[in-house]
Amino acid sequence: MARFDGRQPNQIRPVTMTPNYNKYAEGSVLIEVGDTRVICTATVEDKVPPFLKGQGKGWVTAEYSMIPRATGTRTVREAAKGKLGGRTMEIQRLIGRALRSVVDLEKIGERSITLDCDVIQADGGTRTASITGAFVAMIFALNKLVEQGMLEKIPVNDFIAATSVGIVDGVPVLDLAYVEDSEAAVDMNVVMTGSGRFVEIQGTGEEATFSREEMNELLDLASLGIAELNNIQRQTLGEIADKIGQV
Amino acid sequence: MARFDGRQPNQIRPVTMTPNYNKYAEGSVLIEVGDTRVICTATVEDKVPPFLKGQGKGWVTAEYSMIPRATGTRTVREAAKGKLGGRTMEIQRLIGRALRSVVDLEKIGERSITLDCDVIQADGGTRTASITGAFVAMIFALNKLVEQGMLEKIPVNDFIAATSVGIVDGVPVLDLAYVEDSEAAVDMNVVMTGSGRFVEIQGTGEEATFSREEMNELLDLASLGIAELNNIQRQTLGEIADKIGQV
Amino acid sequence: MARFDGRQPNQIRPVTMTPNYNKYAEGSVLIEVGDTRVICTATVEDKVPPFLKGQGKGWVTAEYSMIPRATGTRTVREAAKGKLGGRTMEIQRLIGRALRSVVDLEKIGERSITLDCDVIQADGGTRTASITGAFVAMIFALNKLVEQGMLEKIPVNDFIAATSVGIVDGVPVLDLAYVEDSEAAVDMNVVMTGSGRFVEIQGTGEEATFSREEMNELLDLASLGIAELNNIQRQTLGEIADKIGQV
Amino acid sequence: MARFDGRQPNQIRPVTMTPNYNKYAEGSVLIEVGDTRVICTATVEDKVPPFLKGQGKGWVTAEYSMIPRATGTRTVREAAKGKLGGRTMEIQRLIGRALRSVVDLEKIGERSITLDCDVIQADGGTRTASITGAFVAMIFALNKLVEQGMLEKIPVNDFIAATSVGIVDGVPVLDLAYVEDSEAAVDMNVVMTGSGRFVEIQGTGEEATFSREEMNELLDLASLGIAELNNIQRQTLGEIADKIGQV
Amino acid sequence: MARFDGRQPNQIRPVTMTPNYNKYAEGSVLIEVGDTRVICTATVEDKVPPFLKGQGKGWVTAEYSMIPRATGTRTVREAAKGKLGGRTMEIQRLIGRALRSVVDLEKIGERSITLDCDVIQADGGTRTASITGAFVAMIFALNKLVEQGMLEKIPVNDFIAATSVGIVDGVPVLDLAYVEDSEAAVDMNVVMTGSGRFVEIQGTGEEATFSREEMNELLDLASLGIAELNNIQRQTLGEIADKIGQV
Amino acid sequence: MARFDGRQPNQIRPVTMTPNYNKYAEGSVLIEVGDTRVICTATVEDKVPPFLKGQGKGWVTAEYSMIPRATGTRTVREAAKGKLGGRTMEIQRLIGRALRSVVDLEKIGERSITLDCDVIQADGGTRTASITGAFVAMIFALNKLVEQGMLEKIPVNDFIAATSVGIVDGVPVLDLAYVEDSEAAVDMNVVMTGSGRFVEIQGTGEEATFSREEMNELLDLASLGIAELNNIQRQTLGEIADKIGQV
Repeated sequence: MARFDGRQPNQIRPVTMTPNYNKYAEGSVLIEVGDTRVICTATVEDKVPPFLKGQGKGWVTAEYSMIPRATGTRTVREAAKGKLGGRTMEIQRLIGRALRSVVDLEKIGERSITLDCDVIQADGGTRTASITGAFVAMIFALNKLVEQGMLEKIPVNDFIAATSVGIVDGVPVLDLAYVEDSEAAVDMNVVMTGSGRFVEIQGTGEEATFSREEMNELLDLASLGIAELNNIQRQTLGEIADKIGQV
Repeated sequence: MARFDGRQPNQIRPVTMTPNYNKYAEGSVLIEVGDTRVICTATVEDKVPPFLKGQGKGWVTAEYSMIPRATGTRTVREAAKGKLGGRTMEIQRLIGRALRSVVDLEKIGERSITLDCDVIQADGGTRTASITGAFVAMIFALNKLVEQGMLEKIPVNDFIAATSVGIVDGVPVLDLAYVEDSEAAVDMNVVMTGSGRFVEIQGTGEEATFSREEMNELLDLASLGIAELNNIQRQTLGEIADKIGQV
Repeated sequence: MARFDGRQPNQIRPVTMTPNYNKYAEGSVLIEVGDTRVICTATVEDKVPPFLKGQGKGWVTAEYSMIPRATGTRTVREAAKGKLGGRTMEIQRLIGRALRSVVDLEKIGERSITLDCDVIQADGGTRTASITGAFVAMIFALNKLVEQGMLEKIPVNDFIAATSVGIVDGVPVLDLAYVEDSEAAVDMNVVMTGSGRFVEIQGTGEEATFSREEMNELLDLASLGIAELNNIQRQTLGEIADKIGQV
Repeated sequence: MARFDGRQPNQIRPVTMTPNYNKYAEGSVLIEVGDTRVICTATVEDKVPPFLKGQGKGWVTAEYSMIPRATGTRTVREAAKGKLGGRTMEIQRLIGRALRSVVDLEKIGERSITLDCDVIQADGGTRTASITGAFVAMIFALNKLVEQGMLEKIPVNDFIAATSVGIVDGVPVLDLAYVEDSEAAVDMNVVMTGSGRFVEIQGTGEEATFSREEMNELLDLASLGIAELNNIQRQTLGEIADKIGQV
Repeated sequence: MARFDGRQPNQIRPVTMTPNYNKYAEGSVLIEVGDTRVICTATVEDKVPPFLKGQGKGWVTAEYSMIPRATGTRTVREAAKGKLGGRTMEIQRLIGRALRSVVDLEKIGERSITLDCDVIQADGGTRTASITGAFVAMIFALNKLVEQGMLEKIPVNDFIAATSVGIVDGVPVLDLAYVEDSEAAVDMNVVMTGSGRFVEIQGTGEEATFSREEMNELLDLASLGIAELNNIQRQTLGEIADKIGQV
Repeated sequence: MARFDGRQPNQIRPVTMTPNYNKYAEGSVLIEVGDTRVICTATVEDKVPPFLKGQGKGWVTAEYSMIPRATGTRTVREAAKGKLGGRTMEIQRLIGRALRSVVDLEKIGERSITLDCDVIQADGGTRTASITGAFVAMIFALNKLVEQGMLEKIPVNDFIAATSVGIVDGVPVLDLAYVEDSEAAVDMNVVMTGSGRFVEIQGTGEEATFSREEMNELLDLASLGIAELNNIQRQTLGEIADKIGQV
């Protein structure tokens, strides 16, 4: 099968990460996965949400947004509508949960790290690119805390990256671009650690269903893609990468 | 392992469904799964959302809410807060998507069916109970359209039911009650059809991860539970059950 | 005159109250007045609204809501609209005011009791059923505080119940069902104590007016109905009923 | 008993009405009842609310607001809070209902009349002053429609005015100023027609109750006060007053 | 050129100020500029916004609103829409900024002064009338603090007043009424001190542009008008006027 | 005087514009003015706001936003707060007004052009950079309409660019960076055409005032800066620049 852009079913799009894209944030990266572009910034603040106050524990959370013309037709701003949509909330909860799964929150102290994922161009896979990029931005920010002597080590026990897989025209494929995503019978977002364990699986058959066998094929593809993304994350982080998993 | 309520790991809680619980709705059921109680009503309206206008196609959607004291401590009403929370939006999008996967929307005509799932007591598994109950309410409503001669057949090609599975104290278990859910390392909601295909899988390791093997065990448990729920749905629907899948 | 359901002008609909309908609330009751069904739960919290802080005094308040299909046609959720309607606010203010009229707020200490009245089926008289049921739920909750040794006595000096009266087809009638309410020229909600004093009278002639004589007839009917409701409240409360008025 | 301002129990405060206070509105009046001052404007628009479209019938509605420093301490604007409070909604619903009770909505045609009642100084009785003033503003606006040949007659069959009565220090008194209102055990707002029929009675015992006898005394006082208000309305309207009740 | 109301290009409309228009506010004035009428009240509160807490410094801020029928066609209330419009926010920020430019915030202590500008009739120039009137209301309030011994002197170093200028039919004119404003090619609001310095200049060519020469002519007119307004402010303040600028 | 970054008082920061930065928008540019970076996209839609419907006329409008970490400390998203702040509204109204001043709205037909200005890094002058960049994005979009034969010519009669000027440490300077802006006694934003006419002047003395002479010096600096910005706009537009002003 020829994919619309010539890729093999098991091939991810070209990925680049520009570290320190923002001059103010404690950590930041511009991640590009094909034509999808997301600015990920990590902000460290000396406060935690009310439900954690006084427990000596930290928090990691995420927010997600798209600029109006990130997409083919202009999307009305959520700020103008006065409320966040369900899709946005789902995505930002997912990003936060994914990152927290590898962070030792006890060890960050009463601090919160907010990962802002602002999509400036969207061509499919914005939530998975956000997770993959936000992980790198978070590590940069935590490393800065280590360098400033606020933390002894980076309190993260593994890598986290994410990709999408789906069934398009009956064929399981990896890393769906927008044109594929809009035609996919099944769409699955997978978040995995560097050691190959699952953090989150969200498989959906909108107006369709899928078998156990299909699911297994999709998970095989996802594992492949995520291993590649881990490599790019390592390259972007340079020697900081070696400090992960030493908790 | 003894579960807190004496159940086996692969055992669901007692389930009852009271059909036609509401005198006004086109279809309704009160579903009780252990101490979780959800009123599901189906409303048929001769209108569709703007994006479907003029296409001769219908729509199925869902809304979800909990009364304030459905839970151990009182929850502030979303109407009082002035907005729906992220969790509510996630759940109502999930219910709608799950139901649409088996409905032939072309065949309902320009009508929408709204499934309201109002949780009057919550003890874990409210979203999966909502899906299981809403399916039955929807079938009652569609059957009424058939009886009124508005539709020829019930345009639904399979059953849909849902349950939760998770890893509690290292053991994969089926149909988590609230006390189990709050301690689970991994929590997975599974929606399946009567013929055993997946509609939706949402597996999450909040501050934890899980292996491929664990995922497989969880899916085996889910299949078991959903088959039982399908039986209870059949009994509740009586002979109407036989009209499903005859599209 | 024959009423649509065969009742006499001075006859209330069948009333049942199911105590402890909810397993979490400090007090709860499901009240059914004809086809009107309201879940009333009482929540006790160790906090008071800002305007009462530090005064050693407590507070009693109420919230009211209807599930979307409580009514013949589906009502859009106030949570989805992002604000409470005027009718809802009016009703919840009325319920709170009515209950406070018989409670000795000084004696509850710095606690608040919130009465949630969730209408799961509406057939006229939902606000008066809410008051009548909420009173019982509140007494159950206060009695629990007595049993736990937090209060010496139930700090309530009388019963409270409510009903509606109105002029339908020129005839004053008691306890209007929805079909009567929608045709009534005059509609009056009356809240009274067990000893026959008024707490609240809200008489309204929507596109109509009424004379002093008509008002007197309506109040006679209301007194009758409320005496019957007091009896049912007593039966539901059992021996706890005797602790009321011993302040 | 001496009232704080020397009035007798059965005496209303000085009332003045400045007609045509606003140069744009179809009808307007500034009503002053003691130190309570309300600008009432009537706006006629050639449209009706959705539920009346195409029925050839009109609508009368009201809105109510207070400027922040209408009161002793500054009140936060509802526009700044982003929502109308329950008290505001209750009051504007009451004003609208009261006016509609004497208007023949069929005869206004598909028009709506909006009465804006903006309180610029509040010293008790703002809702009743609003009703009394809004009635006059409405008549001016309807008379303009008659003069322009849009209507044949003023389609209003009687006068409407309102006042408050209450029990202060055990004594029933008429037209409560703010200092009296805040101490009253019972507070009742009464809306009556020129011919002495009731339109609305809202009697409330906040943390108190009242007997049938007390209610009768209060209604007697209200009748007295409203008759006086009707006279002042007549004077303000001049010869237009004679066109009322000729429907 | 004859202006629509017979004024010369360099002539302002008749201006009157009624001091102490409101019985509750610490300072108040009703300002009338032609048919534009604004109630300005000053409220002193012993609190400051969060960003100033604990700095021993005060704050001056403003809010602006129009009653619905202040204008030729009825405007929907911002409270009903649930949010402030952009125009309102712009205006209230402008008023606050203008007043703060002459107040020594250090010297008011941890107090805030809120100027509420409620437009009860609008005929052009409502924002400049608000500034001119709010200045007077603020001085009255500060003088009361001096009289009560809370402040030693009025901590204001100069007068502030504002007017609009614009180019109408090619001619620069002073103090535009609504009919002029709606036809003006260029519209400029100017805020100046008593000593002739600028506080704020907002010149706008909606669908038009203007030259440096035109701007100079407009500023000359503005200076003229503001000097006249300063005189009227002085007369309204009486001998309190002499306490300004003695910081 | 040495400015913090070595610039002369009359020197602007380095400016770069990356055309077609976004693959979906009809026109787009990334403008960088020093460390201030704004993505400007132009969206053409075949619809106009309600107040223009059926007039055969078009509309140009703008929206403005900053990503949370565009600034030194993280700003809470307006979408999360549920409303646009006053500053945002002021800025987007300014951008729209500025652009409309040179566009012949009659000639665009019933189309609207929305300029989205998303600030991804803020170091002072974001609103003026937005205007300067949005102008270029708009021209690209209009040129595309010409190329597609939808318009005959680009209906724009002149260039528009904007810069800020202010008085810092007593010295008038051009193009303020954030550190200068936060210390400036006077801050003025100036929008001018290519032919040197003013479109908008907003001069503000926050807690300060300024003389006529100072204003003149500031306007001289602004003219200088805007001429330079016009040159950079010309270079970015290439030969399309020559089509401006040929209306």
